[in-house]
Amino acid sequence: MTEFIPPGARWVDLPSPFPMKRGGTLHNARVAFETWGTLDAAAGNALLILTGLSPDAHVASRDDDPTPGWWEAMVGPGKPIDTERWFVVCVNPIGSCKGSTGPASVDPATGDLYRLAFPDVSIEDIADGAAHVVRSLGIERLACVVGNSMGGMTALALLHRHPGISRTHINISGSARALPFSIAVRSLQREAIRLDPNWNEGRYDEATYPESGMRIARKLGVITYRSALEWDGRFGRVRLESDRPDEEPFGLEFQVESYLEGHARRFVRRYDPNSYLYLSRSMDWFDLAEYAGGDVLAALARVRVERALAIGARTDILFPVEQQEEIAEGLSRGGAEARFVGLDSPQGHDAFLVDMDRFGPAVRSFLDGL
Amino acid sequence: MTEFIPPGARWVDLPSPFPMKRGGTLHNARVAFETWGTLDAAAGNALLILTGLSPDAHVASRDDDPTPGWWEAMVGPGKPIDTERWFVVCVNPIGSCKGSTGPASVDPATGDLYRLAFPDVSIEDIADGAAHVVRSLGIERLACVVGNSMGGMTALALLHRHPGISRTHINISGSARALPFSIAVRSLQREAIRLDPNWNEGRYDEATYPESGMRIARKLGVITYRSALEWDGRFGRVRLESDRPDEEPFGLEFQVESYLEGHARRFVRRYDPNSYLYLSRSMDWFDLAEYAGGDVLAALARVRVERALAIGARTDILFPVEQQEEIAEGLSRGGAEARFVGLDSPQGHDAFLVDMDRFGPAVRSFLDGL
Repeated sequence: MTEFIPPGARWVDLPSPFPMKRGGTLHNARVAFETWGTLDAAAGNALLILTGLSPDAHVASRDDDPTPGWWEAMVGPGKPIDTERWFVVCVNPIGSCKGSTGPASVDPATGDLYRLAFPDVSIEDIADGAAHVVRSLGIERLACVVGNSMGGMTALALLHRHPGISRTHINISGSARALPFSIAVRSLQREAIRLDPNWNEGRYDEATYPESGMRIARKLGVITYRSALEWDGRFGRVRLESDRPDEEPFGLEFQVESYLEGHARRFVRRYDPNSYLYLSRSMDWFDLAEYAGGDVLAALARVRVERALAIGARTDILFPVEQQEEIAEGLSRGGAEARFVGLDSPQGHDAFLVDMDRFGPAVRSFLDGL
Repeated sequence: MTEFIPPGARWVDLPSPFPMKRGGTLHNARVAFETWGTLDAAAGNALLILTGLSPDAHVASRDDDPTPGWWEAMVGPGKPIDTERWFVVCVNPIGSCKGSTGPASVDPATGDLYRLAFPDVSIEDIADGAAHVVRSLGIERLACVVGNSMGGMTALALLHRHPGISRTHINISGSARALPFSIAVRSLQREAIRLDPNWNEGRYDEATYPESGMRIARKLGVITYRSALEWDGRFGRVRLESDRPDEEPFGLEFQVESYLEGHARRFVRRYDPNSYLYLSRSMDWFDLAEYAGGDVLAALARVRVERALAIGARTDILFPVEQQEEIAEGLSRGGAEARFVGLDSPQGHDAFLVDMDRFGPAVRSFLDGL
């Protein structure tokens, strides 16, 4: 299984051995990142972006890699995260297949791919990897850490484990702990992969890629990333335009089915199934409340930031806005000037990627105030 | 593949040939049903129950079959649907594997199981099958037709195609047409079955039952039948009690995962996968608006009932309460005294099966008023 690394990626070597939270260590591991803009003399204008499960570190186009990034509308000159003002760093998570060391990387102990020999990955490990990148760039204190979805979890872990690493924080469609609905969805995504005979306990190759399992996992993701409200308006009951119906029994017939199919095709064989399993599980495990005897607000109150913004879409069923409200409340208790904003985006969990009319101004206004 | 027929089932033979809405005919087909209570001399106290996708006609226990039914708390002497007052009939849908003729039945033309040679099943066909049962029991006019979930669709089709067949109607967590979120969920459930190599275009047997596909389909069903709100309170982040963790890679760890697993185990091998595919698809196709140039309210306004109640749970993501509100509005336009009641049940689409404290009184009060 190959990795999928954007051409503009750079790397930071992690200390070797690098201890992992749940046991095990990594040797000769590295973390991939990209940067935009210029770090000022005092290293005071750095902004770190932490990603969701699947994106790479290529958050926006750049002269040396003009491919549009996954958050192209948010990051760039004059954009809400303005690269003329901020030195933007985006880090690829440990465990990913998109540059940082993960299950699809070569295990230096054996010369073979890690596969399931890779140690458990926790959100805290991903945060520690990001902290190494930040420090290696000569940044003692970030101006802001921005985390989306899984990256919102990672940002909280980073702030908790590396006190003072950032003055401020924007948490977008994130949460301080996984709740059972999202655990159930992710568990089912993992089961679809595990039940695919091609998965074979992680020992697949290009010819035996567990395509069926990854298709199901991706489509289930897309269903839960979006919202019924958006789809009612977007697809309704419109059928596929075709001279003849899909000949396969129970084949595609409605536009919404074709939309899911398109998402699956763009994902399958472009993400490593083992990496997917590791990062999916890391989200289930994450619970900031562990650090305060099970009290999530108390754990958030121990996070030290000056200002924070927690935002999300009211139609998000995977990371519901109550979880962003909880983050703002907990950070406020710790003394931060923290605000929660629930946006009326119809696009559910994915809204931060597509509803720039709402998410753009919220992010811009917070950063303008710094 | 065997069928799964409750011991108290009775049958009505359909006219042979029996034409199906989307083409094809059935020969020597029959519809399974059960009854409770006594039909009065004027045949004026008959109440028909139309079911969701998976239940059989055994809605409640009876002397000749003391097994608790799937709606035991709702139907019986002194219960909200009081069998001392009503002659209750429950019909198993055409296409099911639980008594009525379906893909798991023997095709008289070949002597083999129908499997995918079974013609397309539409909600309208299911409604026509139910109408034959009603008439064969000597009932010209039902006092009430009650439909849940898919049965709510079937009830609307029945009322539309057989004008005057019922004086009143209770639509529970139903809808007048499938919308894209529920189509997407069902499409993915079907795909999980179709991708299981054991499915083999419908040619499985006991030894090659497509267990993996049915597991995924059922778990996805349970996730969408319930609600995040309920699970937060019920499971939180509680882990399984076990001396040692599940040894399988990425195996079960949280109670919510074990809950899904229990549901899958109770379903898999107890439902015919082809029947599941047929009935699942019939829901996607259903759109009462077809009968009024695409205007769903106009189509509902053509349905003739005297009184109606449309109820559902506000946490239902599969048949959202807006769809029950639409039913009440449309039936009102047609001159019915129709009321919508959205209940604050936390259990989502499944609430009508478990939240008797809310659904029981709503049904009882409507029926008491007749």
